[in-house]
Amino acid sequence: MATEQEVQLLTQKLEEMLQGDSVKEALELLDSVHPADQADLFLHLDEELKEAFLSLLNAEGLADLLEYLDEDHRREVIEKMPRASLARVLDRMENDEAVDILQDLPPAEAVRVLANMNTASEIAPLLEHSEESAGGLMTRGYVALHKDMTAQEAITFLRLRRPVAEEAYYLYVLDSANRLEGVVNLRQLIVADPQTRIEEIMTREVASVAPGTDQEECARLIQHYRLRALPVVDASGRLEGIITADDLMEVISEEATEDMYRMVGLPSDESVYAPVAVSARRRLPWLYINLITAFFAAAVVAAFEPTIEKLTALAVFMPVVAGQGGNAGIQTITIVVRGIALGEIELRDVRRVLLKEISIGVLKGISLGLTVGIIAGIWKDNWTLGFVVGLALLLNMLVAGALGALIPLTLRALRLDPAIASGIFLTTFTDVLGFFFLLGLATLLISQLT
Amino acid sequence: MATEQEVQLLTQKLEEMLQGDSVKEALELLDSVHPADQADLFLHLDEELKEAFLSLLNAEGLADLLEYLDEDHRREVIEKMPRASLARVLDRMENDEAVDILQDLPPAEAVRVLANMNTASEIAPLLEHSEESAGGLMTRGYVALHKDMTAQEAITFLRLRRPVAEEAYYLYVLDSANRLEGVVNLRQLIVADPQTRIEEIMTREVASVAPGTDQEECARLIQHYRLRALPVVDASGRLEGIITADDLMEVISEEATEDMYRMVGLPSDESVYAPVAVSARRRLPWLYINLITAFFAAAVVAAFEPTIEKLTALAVFMPVVAGQGGNAGIQTITIVVRGIALGEIELRDVRRVLLKEISIGVLKGISLGLTVGIIAGIWKDNWTLGFVVGLALLLNMLVAGALGALIPLTLRALRLDPAIASGIFLTTFTDVLGFFFLLGLATLLISQLT
Repeated sequence: MATEQEVQLLTQKLEEMLQGDSVKEALELLDSVHPADQADLFLHLDEELKEAFLSLLNAEGLADLLEYLDEDHRREVIEKMPRASLARVLDRMENDEAVDILQDLPPAEAVRVLANMNTASEIAPLLEHSEESAGGLMTRGYVALHKDMTAQEAITFLRLRRPVAEEAYYLYVLDSANRLEGVVNLRQLIVADPQTRIEEIMTREVASVAPGTDQEECARLIQHYRLRALPVVDASGRLEGIITADDLMEVISEEATEDMYRMVGLPSDESVYAPVAVSARRRLPWLYINLITAFFAAAVVAAFEPTIEKLTALAVFMPVVAGQGGNAGIQTITIVVRGIALGEIELRDVRRVLLKEISIGVLKGISLGLTVGIIAGIWKDNWTLGFVVGLALLLNMLVAGALGALIPLTLRALRLDPAIASGIFLTTFTDVLGFFFLLGLATLLISQLT
Repeated sequence: MATEQEVQLLTQKLEEMLQGDSVKEALELLDSVHPADQADLFLHLDEELKEAFLSLLNAEGLADLLEYLDEDHRREVIEKMPRASLARVLDRMENDEAVDILQDLPPAEAVRVLANMNTASEIAPLLEHSEESAGGLMTRGYVALHKDMTAQEAITFLRLRRPVAEEAYYLYVLDSANRLEGVVNLRQLIVADPQTRIEEIMTREVASVAPGTDQEECARLIQHYRLRALPVVDASGRLEGIITADDLMEVISEEATEDMYRMVGLPSDESVYAPVAVSARRRLPWLYINLITAFFAAAVVAAFEPTIEKLTALAVFMPVVAGQGGNAGIQTITIVVRGIALGEIELRDVRRVLLKEISIGVLKGISLGLTVGIIAGIWKDNWTLGFVVGLALLLNMLVAGALGALIPLTLRALRLDPAIASGIFLTTFTDVLGFFFLLGLATLLISQLT
């Protein structure tokens, strides 16, 4: 990966060449740079030079560039590109990436582009799958063998066919109806006695997924068995395509981002460099929902205003009790959400996880409740107040532990994303109950408190 | 991946066999199961049957099992295993994994085990590298060629050598001093004319890392260039080992978990199934630090007690103003922390990111401030109160946006982890300043408020 400085230097050089119309030099520079770094250059380039940059690349070069750009910038390139050449470019891309781009175009335009593609018949059936399913991630660029070939025949076959396959390490053994019978890798093929039949060296137990399998499940599977590629087969066992590990590596990153974003109420398409107005629109809905829940907490406080009027010191400890509960609960939620995502927590583990988190809540509550109670007692020279604050904190910690486990597990049981808005539900409860415990106990003991 | 039900069923069967001493049947069952699933079985097995399970496996089988277990359970297996056989087992594991296990043993014991290993000379130099660096992830199990070989000679060489190499898809071309000159993959080798020299088909520009490179950087690199393996070279260009994509896939998962945990103050070794007392000890430190910061906020409230005494309704809106600021700031922090982790935000982007987040803060502040101001005005029939609450909220949102960007970027500039405790710093500020804005404005306008 070119360092930040190198990219900046190259960008500067390229900008000068493009401004000076030194096309030949610019071409030479681009030729010496990996497409992944060309993508970096493109991102840093002056807006008005981007079209000139794109005009330097032929269909092959544009295909390479697009494969290394993220979704937002792909869209930008495609808008700046002469429409007529899009079909040629997509022909040269990996199936799954070409499909993503077609799915992103307005339907009428997608149909028009597809009609002009040479690989249309290969691509069309892939279009029906969701982008986040195995079908949406797979490519048809695999190499198929027959079990009756010998190792030598297979090697000759490969030499003649010259696969540019995305994943040419695994070779798939199919029967006459294209049903997946086994897999053999290039290493096995080379080290085998040339006369051995494929059937004798192939592995028959092949982990595979259905086209509808969720991408997160695919990522778990490929990690579980440490595979380099995952075949996708239909209900009757026919090989539909393969998913390569590098695509799933991206999925692992994306899913982690999505969980982080969801926990704080951000849509997964939010990004650092979206325009301000777009970002504000994406972030506000959750803050409004949060506002509604904040008013629940406010209503609890309002109900106890007469008590606060008698002892304003209670207002001082409100943020302590509610805040500690919220923080403890968020720790539990984070652990449970991540545990579910990594497949460490299943639904049958509910009781075990719940019991553990409640126990930790009680331990933390005793420790922090004592500390806060003593500080409050000394500070306000009021030991009944200390007792009330400490006990309220203890109770809130217990609730935080229980809800921190229950909320994501319940969402999961309802087949919803366990991360989604977990944080809102939790802090609503820890605020409402925290204030209720503190102000309620104070109201009961008000005569001893004042 | 065996489903949850299948694992439960298999576990049950296996437990019956082990209790009934049906060793032969148990062996047959294990033979039919992938090591990744054997690892799952082991986790679910009755504690007292685990030793019997392990005694079924030979050194090869134990090596496979250990490769698919997480760190905690590896330790458990090694404790239960006859010490004498450990060297034999480690000999059969991948270099990088064997090194991890040796590094985890008490030093004296590690030396003793190493002395008994056949692969000691291969392993020993790897021991000096940190587990989280390229050196700690690499394996020496690569295949090396010379550039003067022909494709046919290379294939014959592979057939004779029969590499069990972890990553046998890429073949590395080294000069006589073991310096990395290029890389060629098996596909290129097979499709090439048999008489072509390796030099003519190899790729000379090879992305590589130094042994000290951080694992997160390695993961970024392998994703950036979509590689299947990454060579590790020393300062003079000699190939030290290779890192395979599956190891880096784990790193991507781990680093995401670490960031999520750090943002809520959890140590990265915390796990769902740690004992209660251990978990409580791991989570309490952060809550205590949080407690100190909570008392800053409490002190601000305490300073304004006379104002609250005059108008207890202020206590009602305290959680609304502070909470909204905290939530908005956490959104910003999440985006910036994740952006830094994914390499989307560099230090030179500080101004751009900061300006954007402040602008969003102002937009959100105007929208939410108006809403909350109007609600407060109507609810308490006090429009001055509405103005105070709305303005305090607006100011707090602006601060939240600025600090949400500045805190992680500052940590990054100081070469600290941008995720670490970002949340504590932020909510301290949004609480302290939120209360200060609300109660301070109210104190200034107290005559109009009451």
